[in-house]
Amino acid sequence: MSRSGEPLDLEGWTCPAPLRDHPTVVMGHGGGGRLSAELVEHLFLPAFDAPGLGDSDEAAGAPGVAGVLRQLGDAAVLRLGPEAADARLAFSTDSFVVRPRFFPGGNIGDLAVHGTINDLAVSGARPLALSVGMILEEGMALDELGVIARTMGRDARDAGVAIVTGDTKVVDAGHGDGVYLNTAGIGLVPAGVDLGAHRVRPGDRVLVSGPIGAHGIAVLSVRDGLEFGSAIVTDSAPLHGLVGALLEAGVAVSVMRDPTRGGLAATLNELAAAAGVGVEIVERAVPVPDDVRAACSFLGLDPMQVANEGKLVAFVRGEDAERALAVVQGHPLGVGAALIGEVVAAHPGLVVARTGIGGTRVVDLPLAEQLPRIC
Amino acid sequence: MSRSGEPLDLEGWTCPAPLRDHPTVVMGHGGGGRLSAELVEHLFLPAFDAPGLGDSDEAAGAPGVAGVLRQLGDAAVLRLGPEAADARLAFSTDSFVVRPRFFPGGNIGDLAVHGTINDLAVSGARPLALSVGMILEEGMALDELGVIARTMGRDARDAGVAIVTGDTKVVDAGHGDGVYLNTAGIGLVPAGVDLGAHRVRPGDRVLVSGPIGAHGIAVLSVRDGLEFGSAIVTDSAPLHGLVGALLEAGVAVSVMRDPTRGGLAATLNELAAAAGVGVEIVERAVPVPDDVRAACSFLGLDPMQVANEGKLVAFVRGEDAERALAVVQGHPLGVGAALIGEVVAAHPGLVVARTGIGGTRVVDLPLAEQLPRIC
Repeated sequence: MSRSGEPLDLEGWTCPAPLRDHPTVVMGHGGGGRLSAELVEHLFLPAFDAPGLGDSDEAAGAPGVAGVLRQLGDAAVLRLGPEAADARLAFSTDSFVVRPRFFPGGNIGDLAVHGTINDLAVSGARPLALSVGMILEEGMALDELGVIARTMGRDARDAGVAIVTGDTKVVDAGHGDGVYLNTAGIGLVPAGVDLGAHRVRPGDRVLVSGPIGAHGIAVLSVRDGLEFGSAIVTDSAPLHGLVGALLEAGVAVSVMRDPTRGGLAATLNELAAAAGVGVEIVERAVPVPDDVRAACSFLGLDPMQVANEGKLVAFVRGEDAERALAVVQGHPLGVGAALIGEVVAAHPGLVVARTGIGGTRVVDLPLAEQLPRIC
Repeated sequence: MSRSGEPLDLEGWTCPAPLRDHPTVVMGHGGGGRLSAELVEHLFLPAFDAPGLGDSDEAAGAPGVAGVLRQLGDAAVLRLGPEAADARLAFSTDSFVVRPRFFPGGNIGDLAVHGTINDLAVSGARPLALSVGMILEEGMALDELGVIARTMGRDARDAGVAIVTGDTKVVDAGHGDGVYLNTAGIGLVPAGVDLGAHRVRPGDRVLVSGPIGAHGIAVLSVRDGLEFGSAIVTDSAPLHGLVGALLEAGVAVSVMRDPTRGGLAATLNELAAAAGVGVEIVERAVPVPDDVRAACSFLGLDPMQVANEGKLVAFVRGEDAERALAVVQGHPLGVGAALIGEVVAAHPGLVVARTGIGGTRVVDLPLAEQLPRIC
């Protein structure tokens, strides 16, 4: 069994002898030669394949987005189609160094796919394609790499997004940590969609799509030196469906973010600073699961500073707020959504929380993350 | 003086106290909080800024490509313009783990910018924008990171390409090697440009844009345990101008590649396999500088397997070969270009070299790179 609980069958891989002879990553897997080619052909391509995804136009000599990866060119070449003429392109990148690589509910591969899809989604884009850059450490078990790659392929297919290009490098043992992932992504922002800090106005309401803190606590619960029993699993999920529902409903959204590193606190502070407005949060309106609250209390953490990977924060026009809440709650990823505060003209750049006992406190941008390497 | 020979002036940075207080990378620089924000604002943004690059349309509320980075959204949102309607999008990614980070003629930042520009260029694309993902190791000197970032900004500006989005993670000391870089890039392939292994035909001639092997030998010359005196400097350079000249001349190009890891040998083998053709090289026609040849002889390396970073390999129709050579030789990056062989129907998938004494040898795909971490 792998640490993700998925049974591994190295024998079942369609690997030629050389890969089977090296059940761990060797330097040559990053050298651009025969070993590199075998890793791509026998491990990555089967994991990332997405038959039937995207439109295919084989007759014109241009495969659909699903077939591009197998061309193994130096770059993937994609047709955008007529909608590209008045759409804009969203382009995002994120690296993932989470430790440990497997944690309750997921692994680093889930984060890498969902993280970049979410960066595109909160920019208003329909995600189209991902690139995958891997920095492997010599000695990493190939079966573990296989689990991570298959996770990425599955998550991408489930989200209707193709992995179209990639790159693998290998570093000496002691200069990495198994695998570091980078995903970059592209998507199209439909004409008419206008999101950003410049749209934020006093009176906007702050909506969060569900309870916060689960991802960070799930990772911490299995970290060396911190291990504690917990049933909390990561909330890693792709948000583009939820975002699409919100935009299609015609709700007046000013700006959206996914609160990952630094948690809700960092996201709200960034938006307050970028928009030059104040933000007032009602502390007891912020949904925090009981077990996350208990773990945070035990560890001395502020749930608002704990990382999430599948949560949406949206600033919506006050008059549309209740309708936005209903739309989000009607989506499977938004059943626990809540309106947690509003944008004010006072104290620009500052986020304050009204506490349960009627006082207020400043919700500061954390200096650094409470615990590093959470995504 | 930095190892790149460029004088450093940490005092000259517009850094607030916290960055100056930490002359090395600390975990908090990757945490998404205040330290992360300072690193972006005071180190990366000034290094990557590209005033005047790209079209600006501030009146429409959409900055040109040059202003997108400063928006610091989760994704960069770019207008593609009317040409996107019938163009195709090229999308590429590459990670860089070269050791050491500074070497004669350049540093890891040059490779990261040129490498991805070149992957786009050889796909026939006009490069538009880059993303930069950094994985920093705790303890890395910030002044060295500054030199690398400024190198990247300069190279991108020189190439007319904007760095539009980025991400920074920090890993604990002992789990990295100073800095690992990932760049992803996007570009537009003009309508009518059709390149790829499917276009290769027997009778195509093989053109290389200049002498091979300088990059790999330059890196090796300063590597721990291998150091040897050498005046050889990296050939790292952006190839999109040279490629543009070739395509604009209307030369019938079948396919192009830049021979990096695994060198010319790996590139020719990949193309022979992908196109199902044989390739015959005239060994003495392959340009190898005398000092590279001497170093390879000393180290027991095959120059055809040594990595390059600024060389183009093009398969061109036989009837256009001499004209293609003239076009390439007329470009500053192609003065040492040569026609080195041709595509044959015999021995599909195999690359053979006719040797100086009239024999032939198989030029094999290396099992792995002769020496790892060269880019």
